[in-house]
Amino acid sequence: MKIAALAGGVGGSKLADGFAHLLPVEDLTIIVNTGDDFEHLGLHISPDLDTVCYTLAGIENPVKGWGRRDETYNFLEGIKGIGGPDWFMLGDRDLATHIERTKRLREGQLLHQVTIDFCRSWGVQQTVLPMSNDPIRTMVITKNDGTLPFQEYFVHRNCEPEVKGFRFDGTETAHPTPGVLEALAQADAVVICPSNPWVSIDPILKVGGVRSALSQKIVIAVSPIIAGKTIKGPAGKMFMDMGIRPSALAVAHHYGDIISGFILDRLDEGLSSQIAVPVLASDIYMNSHEKRLRLAQDVLNFIRTL
Amino acid sequence: MKIAALAGGVGGSKLADGFAHLLPVEDLTIIVNTGDDFEHLGLHISPDLDTVCYTLAGIENPVKGWGRRDETYNFLEGIKGIGGPDWFMLGDRDLATHIERTKRLREGQLLHQVTIDFCRSWGVQQTVLPMSNDPIRTMVITKNDGTLPFQEYFVHRNCEPEVKGFRFDGTETAHPTPGVLEALAQADAVVICPSNPWVSIDPILKVGGVRSALSQKIVIAVSPIIAGKTIKGPAGKMFMDMGIRPSALAVAHHYGDIISGFILDRLDEGLSSQIAVPVLASDIYMNSHEKRLRLAQDVLNFIRTL
Repeated sequence: MKIAALAGGVGGSKLADGFAHLLPVEDLTIIVNTGDDFEHLGLHISPDLDTVCYTLAGIENPVKGWGRRDETYNFLEGIKGIGGPDWFMLGDRDLATHIERTKRLREGQLLHQVTIDFCRSWGVQQTVLPMSNDPIRTMVITKNDGTLPFQEYFVHRNCEPEVKGFRFDGTETAHPTPGVLEALAQADAVVICPSNPWVSIDPILKVGGVRSALSQKIVIAVSPIIAGKTIKGPAGKMFMDMGIRPSALAVAHHYGDIISGFILDRLDEGLSSQIAVPVLASDIYMNSHEKRLRLAQDVLNFIRTL
Repeated sequence: MKIAALAGGVGGSKLADGFAHLLPVEDLTIIVNTGDDFEHLGLHISPDLDTVCYTLAGIENPVKGWGRRDETYNFLEGIKGIGGPDWFMLGDRDLATHIERTKRLREGQLLHQVTIDFCRSWGVQQTVLPMSNDPIRTMVITKNDGTLPFQEYFVHRNCEPEVKGFRFDGTETAHPTPGVLEALAQADAVVICPSNPWVSIDPILKVGGVRSALSQKIVIAVSPIIAGKTIKGPAGKMFMDMGIRPSALAVAHHYGDIISGFILDRLDEGLSSQIAVPVLASDIYMNSHEKRLRLAQDVLNFIRTL
């Protein structure tokens, strides 16, 4: 079964990793949000792309949810020591990714080529594609603090400003990465991973051609919210800021008629009857390697029933 | 006594550090070679400038002779892991200097402003000036390997190609850094530190106005060669490649009528009679903090006798 997975950071990368252990490499394409990308210290940083690649490579930092395993932070101490910006955490090993990527992009390579190269170096055989090689920048429209670039809101301001909405700068002119529309067309099903609907999945859906490519497809979304709470990240707070009670139901409503099936946690099974598409209740809290595999298997089995 | 010191890397920085411990901060200006500077991985790297600043700050790596103390090299492992260039050693703490400097230069700051800022952060009160804010690039003309950028010759090729001569690209148009000619004019004496005459001192002397600013001055050079050998670096090999027997005498001849006094090691005292200017024989092997101070004191005393 050919799967195209849409993914943001931690949650998305865990489910993608589950698929990677179950599917032949040629049957899995992971399309990753780049709306969180930004330029920092002159470096092109792609947080979600790196989290997905590091996770598939088994070199991700399992504690922090970003960056690399066995990491040191001496660069950051150095930056602090000369009055440079230290609000965005960059580990020493992780930094190599940003520096080498930035160098290659400046030399004219495209983001997806660099990503494929890095994946091969790290032993990742699956196809990981940034949603677009063109810059798309998620902007957070806040109630009292103006419009903030995503990382400014997310890391520097610690998600504190109240959110009114989002804008995805660049989507009007951005093209999907070569291979994205093909992977969607060839997929037996598209899986929206348990990532933030507002800032991880919506940017992917905004890229030209992606949304319409989903219209004839089996599309399954996995809720990133369990019992009203996100495992990680600000999705819950974003729903609340915008006057929506955060729940698996709110996520299903958010995706509306894009999805043809929905997977929520057993704790939320009671919400199933309010969701217009077939629902599977599973254990979606992936706090171990085994649970990644089990959820990925549940998703594949669920797809077969549709 | 106001001193302007011309310095390259390790040897120069050690003597400069000796002066820094003996002179009031306003009486010492260190003018540093930037001919070794290069762009690597998209970063502006100034090896001599960093060695001088780190040494004055007491954060230099005392073992390697480049980079920082208490250093880790995980960035370099990361770069190696994705097929990036790992021939130029960059420590994790050291990297912060290059990244923040590159960022500031791209924003329009000048190299000497960035250097002064970094020095203040590191607690260095003396004035450390790159010889020029304009790019000057030392090129090594080899017998059999063409003309190589300095770091390509020095680090990547490990000084193996046979040297025929040098070229300092950019000197025709480069201006001395603001403060350089003033410091030379105001100095009671100029000290050419025990740095490589060919690739550390000559580039400084080539910057417009520097050489003529020395013509009315007491200029003391300290030999970087003891008993025919350099403590560190390729100066000895460079003399040999060009058919000159490496010695303190060769260094004194190299500087010719620029210098009004010369300091060599006691081991080389026998050469004194062949040198046309007053000579002091001292212990110039600075393998301890005390010996830096003692040599700096000897230089100051020698200047008073001229």
